[in-house]
Amino acid sequence: MLSLFDLRTRIASGSLTPEAAIALSQEAIARQEPAIGALVRHQADPVIPRSGLLAGIAVGIKDIIDTADMPTEMGSPIYSGWQPKADAAIVARLRGLGAVPLAKTTTCPFASLDPTLTRNPRDLDHTPGGSSAGSAAAVAAGMLPLALGTQTGGSVIRPAAYCGIAGIKPSFRLLPMVGIKTFSWALDTLGLFGAGVRDIAHALAVIADRPAIDLGEAPGVPRIGLVTQDFAGKAEPEAIEALALAVRAAEAAGADVATISLPDILADAFHAQGTIQDFEARQALAWEYAAHRAAFGPMLGPQLDAAQAITADDYDSARRSAHRARRALKDVFGEVDVILTFSAPGRAPMGLGSTGSSCFNRLWTLMGVPCVTVPVPGEGLPLGVQIIAPFGDDGRALAAARFIELALAA
Amino acid sequence: MLSLFDLRTRIASGSLTPEAAIALSQEAIARQEPAIGALVRHQADPVIPRSGLLAGIAVGIKDIIDTADMPTEMGSPIYSGWQPKADAAIVARLRGLGAVPLAKTTTCPFASLDPTLTRNPRDLDHTPGGSSAGSAAAVAAGMLPLALGTQTGGSVIRPAAYCGIAGIKPSFRLLPMVGIKTFSWALDTLGLFGAGVRDIAHALAVIADRPAIDLGEAPGVPRIGLVTQDFAGKAEPEAIEALALAVRAAEAAGADVATISLPDILADAFHAQGTIQDFEARQALAWEYAAHRAAFGPMLGPQLDAAQAITADDYDSARRSAHRARRALKDVFGEVDVILTFSAPGRAPMGLGSTGSSCFNRLWTLMGVPCVTVPVPGEGLPLGVQIIAPFGDDGRALAAARFIELALAA
Repeated sequence: MLSLFDLRTRIASGSLTPEAAIALSQEAIARQEPAIGALVRHQADPVIPRSGLLAGIAVGIKDIIDTADMPTEMGSPIYSGWQPKADAAIVARLRGLGAVPLAKTTTCPFASLDPTLTRNPRDLDHTPGGSSAGSAAAVAAGMLPLALGTQTGGSVIRPAAYCGIAGIKPSFRLLPMVGIKTFSWALDTLGLFGAGVRDIAHALAVIADRPAIDLGEAPGVPRIGLVTQDFAGKAEPEAIEALALAVRAAEAAGADVATISLPDILADAFHAQGTIQDFEARQALAWEYAAHRAAFGPMLGPQLDAAQAITADDYDSARRSAHRARRALKDVFGEVDVILTFSAPGRAPMGLGSTGSSCFNRLWTLMGVPCVTVPVPGEGLPLGVQIIAPFGDDGRALAAARFIELALAA
Repeated sequence: MLSLFDLRTRIASGSLTPEAAIALSQEAIARQEPAIGALVRHQADPVIPRSGLLAGIAVGIKDIIDTADMPTEMGSPIYSGWQPKADAAIVARLRGLGAVPLAKTTTCPFASLDPTLTRNPRDLDHTPGGSSAGSAAAVAAGMLPLALGTQTGGSVIRPAAYCGIAGIKPSFRLLPMVGIKTFSWALDTLGLFGAGVRDIAHALAVIADRPAIDLGEAPGVPRIGLVTQDFAGKAEPEAIEALALAVRAAEAAGADVATISLPDILADAFHAQGTIQDFEARQALAWEYAAHRAAFGPMLGPQLDAAQAITADDYDSARRSAHRARRALKDVFGEVDVILTFSAPGRAPMGLGSTGSSCFNRLWTLMGVPCVTVPVPGEGLPLGVQIIAPFGDDGRALAAARFIELALAA
């Protein structure tokens, strides 16, 4: 894989030029893309800025994010060939930092559940997850050092875990959503994929212009609360084993790990997530639904059909649950620094028929708190564990994730 | 003016057809628009649904709101002729209710401060206010029974007051913002203009699918807290007189009115509003700034130049002030049902060089609470007073506004 941190270190020291760094991506794309299918399109001959804190970094842009120089097709035939006027705010920010938005990456239609044709670079017979399928796969295949995803349920953390890379869903609205197709305005959150925790921490600190997010020399030892999210469903044995491995590694590295149970209101909020998501999606996609219902996929179409029946009362009640749960979660973080839990119920499912389940991600997206997934070393398709910190403390989530990443490598 | 409530009553009773109702708007546009300049464009021969809760209602759509059948130019040469793909969520909702999005209304560039060429229907030598200039002017001129605006500082309440009509800035995100050009995602709020309080109450209840928002037979008698917002600046003598008139009318109608002082944190939040707005605007308009800086107007360009210097720390600190102020405001509403205050510092300024000041609106936009402006009868250019209720209780704001409207008419 291409490490953003390493590339930037070499570029800053003068041992690598931005042009040569972008060429690494171009070469990897030529080699890997035909088998993976992670990209909708990419620039053959991009303008490469010589300076900037992210100069030399090729970035994959999920294809629900507007780009002024490439079509943005939302993963849907409804938007086939559609060319937006402007760059999304995040794309303009990346260009301002010298990065090269090199490719548009595949997305489930409107960042929903109908799968893409993208394959998991770790095993081509498996899904890379979704909905940020191409972004996760492109980073895992070594094509790009950085890619943008969005998460409404589990569309960043899950594909990152399935593809064996690091991913962060930052605090809600830390990164700007302007120019990104909306599914649910209360939930949609921009996230980053990278080879490891140092890569996404450095990228997020620079993009958000908050240096405190970046990792220091050595991460501190976190107090960890272990959470199994029983309300969300059952994890598979290998996911349970991976989580146990992460716990043992963290304890061996000196961390206190305590199993904690979450207040009931958090289970209520877990169940409220779908109501909020679908009530908003019905509004966000109202034009597409009215004008192009037949062009929706076999999952999103019926999902929006059912969403027509959600009442404003249902929605308002779900929002109140979320509000109460956010307050309760603050108290939980009085006891522990971070929460450690599953990134996904198991390994990437076989075939391309499903992108897997977001059950262990949905609550945290609704809470708006920063979530990081770290790969757990092992045989076979990758597994990850998820580290969660209080709202607004993305640096803490990343430092604890780095601690666990190092502990697992030890 | 065209009353939405009256039109709908007549259509529901069968004494007016939707076609005839739309024709009233078409005729008024032919008569009034040449002198006013409220519209960017309008449909000469629109499709007119025969049924729906808003059938027969012609709606003006502020030209930062996407329409699939008309260009959306953002009030800026940068977007000259730009045709979006989809209807904004609110436009699709209006169509679903049988309304006719008949016209795009003028807007200050990107809903900012540089004035439009639109004239105030009450006196053509004066501004109608902004940034929702055309929407306010078109309703005041009797061209449309309903128009959409957006408010980031005071872009709904101020022009409604200047034009002598009713306007509501609902609770934050009660109406969907999908497909509307963003200036500040923490502030931008969709609002409605109508002839009177009954009109906007009925429209909001139907559009938001929350019948409880609509007015009952007779509004209850509210406990009113009078607020002068000294931290926001000085009102002109005629605005002070109009507010006093509203107080006397409310008291004569049986209401308790008590002057209240707001906790200091609300003054802090007032000052934080600009920091939040401009830090987000710099990101929201980053592509336009990088690619088309010279095409910005003489107010927005320098505003965004200055915004480049706002730090993430400034912004995070401003958001914390806003968060604390929202909690403090909840306590204020333990003492009174609604707040009564100025809608604007005075009458619409002379000329078209300025859209006036949003000083008495900004805090409430940041608080996310519902605000309604009601015209105060009198000689000369109109004046309004502003009624504010707790977050999520738009019905309370409208009922109290109706109470004051009736009291002023008595």
